[in-house]
Amino acid sequence: MSWTITADLLPGLARGAAVLGTGGGGDPYIGALLAGQAIRQHGDVTVVAFDEVPDDAVVLTVAMMGAPTVMVEKLPSLDEVVAPVRALGASLGRAVTHVACAEVGGVNSTIPIAAAAALGLPLIDGDGMGRAFPELQMVLPTLYGIDASPLAVSDDKGNVAVLNTVDNAWTERIARVACVEMGCSVMISGFPMSGLQARKALVADSLSLCREIGDGIFAAREAKTDPVEHTVRLLGGREVFAGKVVDVQRATTTGFARGRARIQSDDASLELSFQNEHLLAELDGSTLVTTPDLIMVLEHDSGEPITTEKLRYGQRVRVIAAPSDERWHSPAALAMVGPGYFGYDTPSRRFDGRIDQPADVSAETAA
Amino acid sequence: MSWTITADLLPGLARGAAVLGTGGGGDPYIGALLAGQAIRQHGDVTVVAFDEVPDDAVVLTVAMMGAPTVMVEKLPSLDEVVAPVRALGASLGRAVTHVACAEVGGVNSTIPIAAAAALGLPLIDGDGMGRAFPELQMVLPTLYGIDASPLAVSDDKGNVAVLNTVDNAWTERIARVACVEMGCSVMISGFPMSGLQARKALVADSLSLCREIGDGIFAAREAKTDPVEHTVRLLGGREVFAGKVVDVQRATTTGFARGRARIQSDDASLELSFQNEHLLAELDGSTLVTTPDLIMVLEHDSGEPITTEKLRYGQRVRVIAAPSDERWHSPAALAMVGPGYFGYDTPSRRFDGRIDQPADVSAETAA
Repeated sequence: MSWTITADLLPGLARGAAVLGTGGGGDPYIGALLAGQAIRQHGDVTVVAFDEVPDDAVVLTVAMMGAPTVMVEKLPSLDEVVAPVRALGASLGRAVTHVACAEVGGVNSTIPIAAAAALGLPLIDGDGMGRAFPELQMVLPTLYGIDASPLAVSDDKGNVAVLNTVDNAWTERIARVACVEMGCSVMISGFPMSGLQARKALVADSLSLCREIGDGIFAAREAKTDPVEHTVRLLGGREVFAGKVVDVQRATTTGFARGRARIQSDDASLELSFQNEHLLAELDGSTLVTTPDLIMVLEHDSGEPITTEKLRYGQRVRVIAAPSDERWHSPAALAMVGPGYFGYDTPSRRFDGRIDQPADVSAETAA
Repeated sequence: MSWTITADLLPGLARGAAVLGTGGGGDPYIGALLAGQAIRQHGDVTVVAFDEVPDDAVVLTVAMMGAPTVMVEKLPSLDEVVAPVRALGASLGRAVTHVACAEVGGVNSTIPIAAAAALGLPLIDGDGMGRAFPELQMVLPTLYGIDASPLAVSDDKGNVAVLNTVDNAWTERIARVACVEMGCSVMISGFPMSGLQARKALVADSLSLCREIGDGIFAAREAKTDPVEHTVRLLGGREVFAGKVVDVQRATTTGFARGRARIQSDDASLELSFQNEHLLAELDGSTLVTTPDLIMVLEHDSGEPITTEKLRYGQRVRVIAAPSDERWHSPAALAMVGPGYFGYDTPSRRFDGRIDQPADVSAETAA
């Protein structure tokens, strides 16, 4: 069933998207601002469920690409948001009928809302990952053989590049170096697909889930219940650690925000490794959760998501984990987004809610 | 008057182009091979003089971009040569009518011949520089306000990027990082212009001049006269040094072949600084010739041009200089291609054939 995104829904939606963004995908406050401006100028956005997307729809993804550390300081204008969609539409020679999210994230779930508003197009209730990942080929459509290109990259100066590449890894490579040269934060639009392809390859209902998570965090606080518990339940996940951020190493290199964060409880230490997104959680040196499963850092009491570029010494946080979309665990998917791809010498570990370490204990001791 | 490039003209033409290429623009032997293959497959190429190019012609430049050190090891196929022209034509939505050379050089004067043959289009007798320069915005059309973009970049894998940029310096920046990522050697096509614009902005008759220089070198050797003297006379230039190459420093960095070469005579030393092309000649520490004027290294006896990637210890060479196209000496042009742009702390020095140092002396002592 279709529903409508009005400006008042944005803070909840962006907050929920930042939870599922697993540390990446951009800051929810900025994301809500961007989409809010577009809705005020151009009107509300219609979100359509998969069963309302016709087979012959022309669907494009719209996203911001770059290091979140830079993205938060370089907000795009609405003209910049629609520029790559227009360039790609012209290159395709077909009228675009639907906008979709490539990933879930505080900005990358709201940029498509802004684009849909400005272009007067419906937005599909879904996304390409069910989470966020750092590289553009890392979407389920790649596993379905859908080409990322033609893909348009545009910057704040007005430069636009339309790429046609031999595979999605090459789209990432060329778009990434262009992104870095253009200022480390650009708008992209790509993955042209039919409605039929989109319904197969995307993760269904993820905008609805973002809204449910984000509104739920707020409602739980209002009801004086635990917002983190509410989020964990919605995701079928588990709280794996609680403590204080005692160390953050972060560098913006080759277009990514890369680093590690250490969280300390009274008797244990959790180390998170990230490349835009959290990819690995190690408890006292043992692997606890790995990409592609979801690792999320929430503010201890309020349950608000903390993105990797906002991690700071002294924050009291709770770390939760949840299983990714089932399709991310196929051998082809793990070759693309498993720990090995990112250079971690750790086998992928399937998170199923039952983890070896007694997570409740560490959570309690840190309270 | 139009003339025809047949396969037997290619060695002379490529050799002359390598002289005017001032060390860059690629190896003449490789250039002749590429164009020869195209002519054998698709037929001879018609070269048209400026007065035969109609006002409303649709002219594109075609070139190889990258470090010559890499270009000589990664020859493009004919499919690769025409790929950016086709991509650009599709992006423009107009039929291309003429091909032009962006610069003069052993490969960059012959790649357009190959493209013209494969596409069945006439080639304009001219080029964008009257020499070679390392960056793509460094053409006279930039000084006439002609946009480099839309510009297409394509590689040996089959990847293509079409750029639309806010100015020609941004075209260079984005194309360069794409070029480096694509393997440091790519095909480009850009600078779409009308016949009217092309006739104003390009350097006239440069393919004819290449042929005259190249054939002249061969003819002088046959006639047992000095081929270098013949070249110097054709260019209105002067021989400025003769000696042995005693030192070559060369690194392929950020997509360019950068370095220095030292040439020693009995009593003097000439240092050449290059970035793909020779940009600065210093005699015993004093500036002798600077970009944009032409600095060319020729093999001592045969008069064959030596490109910067082919400079080797022990070569006996003669260095000649000649004035560039007059338009390169305007303040706007010097800001783009003068010594300061390349980081040399030397004012631009106008070469007029009369230089302070007694060039004849050093030439004699080295013989």
